[in-house]
Amino acid sequence: MSQEIQNQDSPVQSEVKSDRQGRIIWITGLSGSGKTTLSTLLDARLREGTDRVYTLDGDLIRQGLNSDLGFSDEDRKENIRRIGEVARLFVDADFIVIVAFISPFKADRDKVRQATEPGRFLEVYLDCPLKVCEQRDPKGLYKKARLKKIEKFTGISSPYEPPGSPEVTLRTHERTAEECVQEIIDCIKKHS
Amino acid sequence: MSQEIQNQDSPVQSEVKSDRQGRIIWITGLSGSGKTTLSTLLDARLREGTDRVYTLDGDLIRQGLNSDLGFSDEDRKENIRRIGEVARLFVDADFIVIVAFISPFKADRDKVRQATEPGRFLEVYLDCPLKVCEQRDPKGLYKKARLKKIEKFTGISSPYEPPGSPEVTLRTHERTAEECVQEIIDCIKKHS
Repeated sequence: MSQEIQNQDSPVQSEVKSDRQGRIIWITGLSGSGKTTLSTLLDARLREGTDRVYTLDGDLIRQGLNSDLGFSDEDRKENIRRIGEVARLFVDADFIVIVAFISPFKADRDKVRQATEPGRFLEVYLDCPLKVCEQRDPKGLYKKARLKKIEKFTGISSPYEPPGSPEVTLRTHERTAEECVQEIIDCIKKHS
Repeated sequence: MSQEIQNQDSPVQSEVKSDRQGRIIWITGLSGSGKTTLSTLLDARLREGTDRVYTLDGDLIRQGLNSDLGFSDEDRKENIRRIGEVARLFVDADFIVIVAFISPFKADRDKVRQATEPGRFLEVYLDCPLKVCEQRDPKGLYKKARLKKIEKFTGISSPYEPPGSPEVTLRTHERTAEECVQEIIDCIKKHS
């Protein structure tokens, strides 16, 4: 291998250009607010138009990349930091990456936003009352939290901090899932 | 949002099917063995045939996802674990992902291999003598390591464990970069 070739710079990352579609769609809200439903539908709708869509699955990440983390405030913060970094790698690969995590702390979400090129981080706030989420309780977690079988459960024993200026706010208890997804898609188009 | 929709399972990850191209090309070797040169050329060659290629850049990862890690044995292990997990996410998104890190410890690389679907982890060992790498010293790191300005430098003050059964072994000091890249591409084809 010639020395000339040897000495070139580190691998060139694909440059983020304005004609690229890479975006982070960051869906935040309480457990039961509809994150999974909407991210699944959104993923399917976006795939109709592009094959560069990827949903970061919370369970998969917790079992894999973040398997060393628990649910203390510090670990939750680190959980979101790493997810943000991975999401940014997918944006660099020109993906629309859907992130649907409770992500309760505003400062942690804002850090991801600040690290992402302007206009490429779209925050979707699922503004659903705790009462409704608790009634839905799709995974039976609120029940366990009320019985104190789960510590630090967001909304019950740990705070949820809503976004200051999300790109989209969806009152998921008042609208159909399809309407909500359409609003997210309209927002992506607006920022394209 | 109807309760029926609300209760569906978590987002479906795209299934890894046999007709999918997703692969990890894991290039391992000493500093100066040619990892950056080969990964850059390989990335360019692969992009001639597909737009689903991504190179995980060591510096970018160290500044981002793994910015909390240093160079102790434990941190190096965690560095490789996380890189492996991110690479697997890209494989799930059907990417050929190029990983070019020293990754000195066999057990750490083998763990990534074991976590990856058989045939989708291709290990490329750059078998270049320490003496040659040290002569090249593209970043001046060997010099610093010899002067003990860098602790735990692989090959000098920290071990490098070669792979047991790599898919490709390249004696980069005896062949051109183009020949080496061609051999990697032939290996990818063989495993497709």
